[in-house]
Amino acid sequence: MLRTDGRNDDVLRDIRITRGFQQWPAGSVLVEFGNTRVLCAASVTEGVPRWRAGSGLGWVTAEYAMLPSATHTRSDRESVKGRIGGRTHEISRLIGRSLRACIDLAALGENTIVIDCDVIQADGGTRTAAITGAYVALADAVTWLGAANRLADPLPLSCAVSAVSVGVVDGRVRLDLPYEEDSRAEVDMNVVATDAGTLIEVQGTGEGATFARSTLDKMLDLALEGCAQLNRLQAEALALPYPGVLPEPRGKRK
Amino acid sequence: MLRTDGRNDDVLRDIRITRGFQQWPAGSVLVEFGNTRVLCAASVTEGVPRWRAGSGLGWVTAEYAMLPSATHTRSDRESVKGRIGGRTHEISRLIGRSLRACIDLAALGENTIVIDCDVIQADGGTRTAAITGAYVALADAVTWLGAANRLADPLPLSCAVSAVSVGVVDGRVRLDLPYEEDSRAEVDMNVVATDAGTLIEVQGTGEGATFARSTLDKMLDLALEGCAQLNRLQAEALALPYPGVLPEPRGKRK
Amino acid sequence: MLRTDGRNDDVLRDIRITRGFQQWPAGSVLVEFGNTRVLCAASVTEGVPRWRAGSGLGWVTAEYAMLPSATHTRSDRESVKGRIGGRTHEISRLIGRSLRACIDLAALGENTIVIDCDVIQADGGTRTAAITGAYVALADAVTWLGAANRLADPLPLSCAVSAVSVGVVDGRVRLDLPYEEDSRAEVDMNVVATDAGTLIEVQGTGEGATFARSTLDKMLDLALEGCAQLNRLQAEALALPYPGVLPEPRGKRK
Amino acid sequence: MLRTDGRNDDVLRDIRITRGFQQWPAGSVLVEFGNTRVLCAASVTEGVPRWRAGSGLGWVTAEYAMLPSATHTRSDRESVKGRIGGRTHEISRLIGRSLRACIDLAALGENTIVIDCDVIQADGGTRTAAITGAYVALADAVTWLGAANRLADPLPLSCAVSAVSVGVVDGRVRLDLPYEEDSRAEVDMNVVATDAGTLIEVQGTGEGATFARSTLDKMLDLALEGCAQLNRLQAEALALPYPGVLPEPRGKRK
Amino acid sequence: MLRTDGRNDDVLRDIRITRGFQQWPAGSVLVEFGNTRVLCAASVTEGVPRWRAGSGLGWVTAEYAMLPSATHTRSDRESVKGRIGGRTHEISRLIGRSLRACIDLAALGENTIVIDCDVIQADGGTRTAAITGAYVALADAVTWLGAANRLADPLPLSCAVSAVSVGVVDGRVRLDLPYEEDSRAEVDMNVVATDAGTLIEVQGTGEGATFARSTLDKMLDLALEGCAQLNRLQAEALALPYPGVLPEPRGKRK
Amino acid sequence: MLRTDGRNDDVLRDIRITRGFQQWPAGSVLVEFGNTRVLCAASVTEGVPRWRAGSGLGWVTAEYAMLPSATHTRSDRESVKGRIGGRTHEISRLIGRSLRACIDLAALGENTIVIDCDVIQADGGTRTAAITGAYVALADAVTWLGAANRLADPLPLSCAVSAVSVGVVDGRVRLDLPYEEDSRAEVDMNVVATDAGTLIEVQGTGEGATFARSTLDKMLDLALEGCAQLNRLQAEALALPYPGVLPEPRGKRK
Repeated sequence: MLRTDGRNDDVLRDIRITRGFQQWPAGSVLVEFGNTRVLCAASVTEGVPRWRAGSGLGWVTAEYAMLPSATHTRSDRESVKGRIGGRTHEISRLIGRSLRACIDLAALGENTIVIDCDVIQADGGTRTAAITGAYVALADAVTWLGAANRLADPLPLSCAVSAVSVGVVDGRVRLDLPYEEDSRAEVDMNVVATDAGTLIEVQGTGEGATFARSTLDKMLDLALEGCAQLNRLQAEALALPYPGVLPEPRGKRK
Repeated sequence: MLRTDGRNDDVLRDIRITRGFQQWPAGSVLVEFGNTRVLCAASVTEGVPRWRAGSGLGWVTAEYAMLPSATHTRSDRESVKGRIGGRTHEISRLIGRSLRACIDLAALGENTIVIDCDVIQADGGTRTAAITGAYVALADAVTWLGAANRLADPLPLSCAVSAVSVGVVDGRVRLDLPYEEDSRAEVDMNVVATDAGTLIEVQGTGEGATFARSTLDKMLDLALEGCAQLNRLQAEALALPYPGVLPEPRGKRK
Repeated sequence: MLRTDGRNDDVLRDIRITRGFQQWPAGSVLVEFGNTRVLCAASVTEGVPRWRAGSGLGWVTAEYAMLPSATHTRSDRESVKGRIGGRTHEISRLIGRSLRACIDLAALGENTIVIDCDVIQADGGTRTAAITGAYVALADAVTWLGAANRLADPLPLSCAVSAVSVGVVDGRVRLDLPYEEDSRAEVDMNVVATDAGTLIEVQGTGEGATFARSTLDKMLDLALEGCAQLNRLQAEALALPYPGVLPEPRGKRK
Repeated sequence: MLRTDGRNDDVLRDIRITRGFQQWPAGSVLVEFGNTRVLCAASVTEGVPRWRAGSGLGWVTAEYAMLPSATHTRSDRESVKGRIGGRTHEISRLIGRSLRACIDLAALGENTIVIDCDVIQADGGTRTAAITGAYVALADAVTWLGAANRLADPLPLSCAVSAVSVGVVDGRVRLDLPYEEDSRAEVDMNVVATDAGTLIEVQGTGEGATFARSTLDKMLDLALEGCAQLNRLQAEALALPYPGVLPEPRGKRK
Repeated sequence: MLRTDGRNDDVLRDIRITRGFQQWPAGSVLVEFGNTRVLCAASVTEGVPRWRAGSGLGWVTAEYAMLPSATHTRSDRESVKGRIGGRTHEISRLIGRSLRACIDLAALGENTIVIDCDVIQADGGTRTAAITGAYVALADAVTWLGAANRLADPLPLSCAVSAVSVGVVDGRVRLDLPYEEDSRAEVDMNVVATDAGTLIEVQGTGEGATFARSTLDKMLDLALEGCAQLNRLQAEALALPYPGVLPEPRGKRK
Repeated sequence: MLRTDGRNDDVLRDIRITRGFQQWPAGSVLVEFGNTRVLCAASVTEGVPRWRAGSGLGWVTAEYAMLPSATHTRSDRESVKGRIGGRTHEISRLIGRSLRACIDLAALGENTIVIDCDVIQADGGTRTAAITGAYVALADAVTWLGAANRLADPLPLSCAVSAVSVGVVDGRVRLDLPYEEDSRAEVDMNVVATDAGTLIEVQGTGEGATFARSTLDKMLDLALEGCAQLNRLQAEALALPYPGVLPEPRGKRK
């Protein structure tokens, strides 16, 4: 029993990771999980937010947003509404937390990296695609800072981070749900994991239903396999050279 | 090796559930998990939000908030800031989702129940206390609607819902963390479960750290035991008579 | 001709003042005027707002709010609406002004006391109950600051402050109106007075009607008697020991 | 002992009431209390706010605002700040309440009159000048509605309304305080009264001080005399013909 | 073929420029283009916005707003809506840009001049009237700063600035459109020019129509003539003495 | 004397117009003017805004925004700030006006087309690129509506619309300025024109400088040539088949 898009239950959609999508940010990655496309840009600024100043620690944060035209039916622009919705807040916080789990903020030095995850096209799994792409953008930003001689310690990244969704659809546990499956899933789970196979975040929700502990276990198995594949694709993408012009070492800056 | 408050790792704090705390809402429950105190009020209004009108389905939603004076250091009032923070949004959505998992919205009829969870005093675990108390307030509101003859079906609640936090502190898996433990936990998880032992929501987060699958399994074991105990305490509280005056059946209203 | 709740025209409702209601703020008082219940918390912070810095003067301010579940029909949450309403603003300002009339801000030193008055249950007279309870919370916060050796002068409070409503209902001048009377009063007045019998604030309003000077005089007589009784109850409450743990004197702090 | 501007304690500033200041609103009055200048415009719209629709009653409301350039030091624009301040809210509500005390909303029919009171120049007493001018603008709007044959009853106004400030400055009770006196007054009171000598609103405040009942009595005496004079000036202004073009009776409108 | 108000196509409305309209701002000008009346106030503050501090340059900015009662039908107050509309933003920016073209910000020294343009009555051309009046208010503020000895250089103004609207109505190119013409114009253009005949800003828009290059040329001819006349009226107004009390030179201030 | 990027003064940057960039909107165009990249999406909804309902006319509106990562230095997200800035408002309004000039809203029928112009990468001229791309997206949306049999008249578009910037840089009149030139231009002008050579909008601004009428004329000459080239490129792009799946005619919809 194949899925609508012809995949088996345990197969990821086509994944594409394009580095250097924009010219200005230190890291800029277009990540695609099938038709879901998210632009992840990592911008570096010197210094840290006021509440953290003088600590010697850096800061990594994320902002997630959806273009109005990204969804099947156009969605209202949050800047026009004058408020950020709960879902947006929640996902932004999740991405930021996930990335901070893989970086040593002392090694980063008093620099701030903001990761903007803007969904260009939404077809399910935008938050997991965003985390997966954001890690690659973060890695490029760290390379950029290293070239500029601005890191407190040369290797701030302790692991790679990827994420995938998994759910129960038509009574079957399935990996990487597109919108068509996500919208009718009985259980929906997002798993963020490292390339060491450890977990960073697990969020599972019964959608108007409850689920057994054994179902949770099966979903975790599948998700961890998916994350491992995503880690391999991230590593491949990062094996290519830095896609832009690296800065001169710091001593040469005014 | 006992915890600061003298408990063993697998023991809940003192739990108190006081129904009828306020006079106006159909359900009003003060729930206490040790020093954490949350007022959960379930208010009934006729009709449903516009986007749901005419569907024959009811609606249950929740709003979580913290009194400025509830925290160790006074926190700013969100109404004064003019914005609801991400954490508030996130918890409000979690409570609403959790309660909707236990209620048949068709049986509820076109009524809306809003659950306000206002934290009077915060000492860790406010969201899990809120869910645990909110279920009891919801049950009272359903009783109230039943007495008023306003339910589409007499038994809309399909199960009871409770929630508890669990985490890794000092390398040990512990149940129901107070603020002192929560603030230094390496892993933090909130589990929402039913009295049938099934899961509604699982949210586990490494706090600047990652965690093994086996740790997740131990945390789930402990959390499910905690939820089972909370379900018993909810049942005891609900075994007492409705704490206020029930309405006349609908036909007698103007 | 008795009132609905059996009182004579010149009798207060049952008044209860409970100190130490919460554990974190320096002063935390639950005040009850019959079914009206307001939680008044006085939080101390070092320093003063920027516009006052360096003046050597302290600052006392208040924020009033209503829990959504406090009213007969649930009221919308101001944080969700993103705006504070006119009534909320007005009452917050009244409470702040009233308290500042009884405290020597130079003696307070460069400390800020914020008084949060959160209405748990509303049944008329919430603003006068709030002022009456806020004074007691303020007194506890001053005691706390004194114990910490942080006052510029040991006795900053020059008088006690209480408040009561009075109105014309069914053509009769009545003291301390519950909601049922307040909502149909022809004239409504709030009086804030000191234990020396002097006035701090007088606000009288004809509700869609006008009133004679002689009516104003009668209302003032009644209100001043009410305030005197409230002052006695405040004094009784404050005669008990400080309900929490006082801080060590300042010199011992880091 | 004369005041800075040469007046005796019981004398009003120069009062000027100019009707027909703007061409579009049904009533438009520039009122001047010495250097305080407020533009009061009464705009008529058909129908009433939703919460009042179908009641057969009209509605009168007011909005008070200050031009940024009206004050000695430029004040920030509330539209730019994105929030209305507490003081603005409070005064808008006071003006609205005061005017509703003199008009029979059933006689007004289902029409809404919005009174905009925009302070062109502030020199103390802006709220009392606004009420005094707003009554005249309201009277013109009522005349306009009468000419259009749109009133439910021909005489909706039951009395005239004026207001004046009074205070204790340098230990002396004084009428109609300019900014120079207002800013250092020990007690400040605003009194809204009718031309029948009855009271609509009394708001007296000790400014960092308290005051005796006997002081309140003296202030009331002075304020009521001031209001009586203002009523005479309003009557004189309204004795002139309507300053614009009255509409055709309703039957002739499309 | 005369226009509704009897003018020829190339004739301005009656223009009146009244300096010293308010007492507090350094410059305060009421400008009238026929029935359009705009109050332009120039307020001086020491220092510059943070992003400009230490540059040695001054700053000139403008805020445009409409009184709710200024328009034929009352318009909602932007402070109440909590947002500034696009049109308001756009015109504020235009006025600020136009004035900055005529002033040497280095000569101004680190002073800020805010020009508030509040429309008292709207009958077309409010933005062009505002610019024309704002220049006169700015000139007075510069005079005030010069008297106070606070300019870095004595002659910061390099030219005079005026503005006028021009449009195509009934197929004819016309100058200075009142609302009645503006609302049905096929093309609408605003031109800001200097007394040297050079241009500062040109904004021409087809209103649901397009227009030929030759029409643009005719409109520019007419507008430049109008601006030249406005420059003469500005010069006449500024030939009178400063309408208030000039400050003492800076050395004498505390 | 060549420009930094090697172009002559009268040469456009490389222009690319990619239709069908996103899958959901009826029109989705990525337009590139050199390094400036704007995503223009035209979304169709049935019905029109409330103020237009029942008129038989359709509506076209636009929203412009910048991704935070689009600019050299990351810009703050307007949704997070809770306000749309003046520049954003201004450009959104300009795009909407420009497109409405080329479409017969009666022919469109009671449909709304919202054009979202999101800047992916900014390098000068984002508003003119947005208009140029938006026209193509609009044309696709009209094709989509036509296929669905939902137009009141089959040919609502009366002309094509394109836009280009022109300015004075280093004393030379130049076409299509990149950021490097734009940021130091003495005069900056945006011209919106039709493929019939007529004008829709002309906005010219001296940037801290003024400019002669003859300069304006030269800029217009150059801009009109640029627009003509852009029109040819639009026509080429639109000569290709519709890039997605057209809907079934309306009668076949449920």
